[in-house]
Amino acid sequence: MITTDICIIGAGPVGLFAVFEAGLLKMRCHLIDALPQVGGQLSEIYPQKPIYDIPGYPEIKAQELVDNLMEQIKPFKPTFSLGERVDHLTKQEDGSYVITTNDKTQIHAQVIVIAGGLGCFEPRKPVLENLEHFEGKGVAYMVKNPEQFRDKKVVLAGGGDSALDWAIYLADVAKRVTLVHRNETFRGAPDSAAKVFDMANNGKIDLILSANLKELGGNGRLATVLLEDKAKSQIKIDTDYLIPLFGLSPKLGPIADWGLTIDKNAIEVDTTDYSTGVDRIYAIGDINTYPGKLKLILCGFHEAAIMMHSAFKYVYPDQKLSFKYTTVNGVNAF
Amino acid sequence: MITTDICIIGAGPVGLFAVFEAGLLKMRCHLIDALPQVGGQLSEIYPQKPIYDIPGYPEIKAQELVDNLMEQIKPFKPTFSLGERVDHLTKQEDGSYVITTNDKTQIHAQVIVIAGGLGCFEPRKPVLENLEHFEGKGVAYMVKNPEQFRDKKVVLAGGGDSALDWAIYLADVAKRVTLVHRNETFRGAPDSAAKVFDMANNGKIDLILSANLKELGGNGRLATVLLEDKAKSQIKIDTDYLIPLFGLSPKLGPIADWGLTIDKNAIEVDTTDYSTGVDRIYAIGDINTYPGKLKLILCGFHEAAIMMHSAFKYVYPDQKLSFKYTTVNGVNAF
Repeated sequence: MITTDICIIGAGPVGLFAVFEAGLLKMRCHLIDALPQVGGQLSEIYPQKPIYDIPGYPEIKAQELVDNLMEQIKPFKPTFSLGERVDHLTKQEDGSYVITTNDKTQIHAQVIVIAGGLGCFEPRKPVLENLEHFEGKGVAYMVKNPEQFRDKKVVLAGGGDSALDWAIYLADVAKRVTLVHRNETFRGAPDSAAKVFDMANNGKIDLILSANLKELGGNGRLATVLLEDKAKSQIKIDTDYLIPLFGLSPKLGPIADWGLTIDKNAIEVDTTDYSTGVDRIYAIGDINTYPGKLKLILCGFHEAAIMMHSAFKYVYPDQKLSFKYTTVNGVNAF
Repeated sequence: MITTDICIIGAGPVGLFAVFEAGLLKMRCHLIDALPQVGGQLSEIYPQKPIYDIPGYPEIKAQELVDNLMEQIKPFKPTFSLGERVDHLTKQEDGSYVITTNDKTQIHAQVIVIAGGLGCFEPRKPVLENLEHFEGKGVAYMVKNPEQFRDKKVVLAGGGDSALDWAIYLADVAKRVTLVHRNETFRGAPDSAAKVFDMANNGKIDLILSANLKELGGNGRLATVLLEDKAKSQIKIDTDYLIPLFGLSPKLGPIADWGLTIDKNAIEVDTTDYSTGVDRIYAIGDINTYPGKLKLILCGFHEAAIMMHSAFKYVYPDQKLSFKYTTVNGVNAF
């Protein structure tokens, strides 16, 4: 049995920074992540992609941010169970919890922090007969590495920002981009939509509106996508890839059974301390929601700081929290 | 008359980052600061001091953080009135504001953001007859550069974390540190207090409890501090410096007349969007307060992001805000 003060589910950027804020209050953390490495989506999906909205970094590669966060929390000696999923959560008589993972690792913690981010979600898939057959063989649900599509024929499907942004981006990379959308108008940003219409008018992409995905074809690998429009007429497109971008749906697994309030695919929290309403369970980062919520890493950092100050009372019930700045003596004073 | 979307009062780290978040929503900013340069306390008080709690930076010098923030907001072309203070605020018929500075600069803005941080506060001073006479000549209210006190005799006064932390820190720098406190116990962190008592027992510092500052002496420069204890007996201490660390009191100037709710020396805000309750006026960073508030730069970054999304409706009343991530196309797409 691993014993810790705080068990953090999710080792993405927000979960990692939470270790720092806990450490300043002398609380130790154990992190669990289903992925085999830390960093969450940053390391898994776009390690080499620059990020522009981390305060103080005009530009930083996703993996570099993760590496820096690992360096920053090193003094607080976090421990990890990577490549494992939470299977059970059992409340103890004294209010603490025991978590059991699918690998039968057991962690005893005073406080649970859910920082599962988008890792708790999965892509919403179109209903197509032989879809699974082509997954990884032409059908992809996200663009991990745009270079994969260089000089290839790509069909994108969807009407939100992801579909618009990737259509614009991949137009310069792919051999041919076709964007399929079931409506006449887009849900995404108006200026992106305007740009997509513009590119279609200039022949830079093919835009097919009011049409649905109907059938996939190919021998082993995806080769064709059949579309059907409102008038039931069919269009067959030769393609190397189909990327349906229909958003995400929650995949909370056993977390869904913990009595949390789920709204808009996210866990509702109290903004005073990002607590979930379930005793000693907090939720921070992209997995939570509250009035005004923005799914930004920098907001998760703030949530982590506030949340740890609230959790202190469970770890040190007899102590008064006294807030210290790191500016005078650095982190070694903690 | 300068015309802008958002006028930010305070060009410290939080005010600067607010420009970035505004920029992503196509809102332009003008910043006013009483200091002659941007960066607030970071540039003014401790430019060369490392900071340890900026997420993603295990250590960064204060000025370097400011420089990076300036680089990050460059694409959004902020404008500045530095070395100026806000004198007047006049509400226009359409709900917008005109700000006039002490230099008679006029700024017309749709939204006002108060990001004045500690710059809106001043040190609480002890009541001593000839105090002003010795200011800058031995009496200091903050430690800007610890090296100033190397091999000097220093008297610190106060019972909070600043007094404790600087007593501990300066014990290794100064020739002799004397800590004077009017009570027997400290308000600051228990472990810091324990350390101070320990150091006093080991002769590393002089600790004088239940005593008050009574009189300053010196010919041109501070040379002695006279203390009086509860029993009215007096102690004269030879010293080069006296640093009273009695906290801060608000120095809001004309801002205090704007109808804001002030609590615990800070402006009360709604955590949904960090609005002040006065139409179109927001407060972010160390100047604001709300349940759970932590005075951390990283929290101000979050507040800036949330606040700008709320302010959008005043700048673009006819547009629906569509939230875009910077990850796909970087900041040039904005």
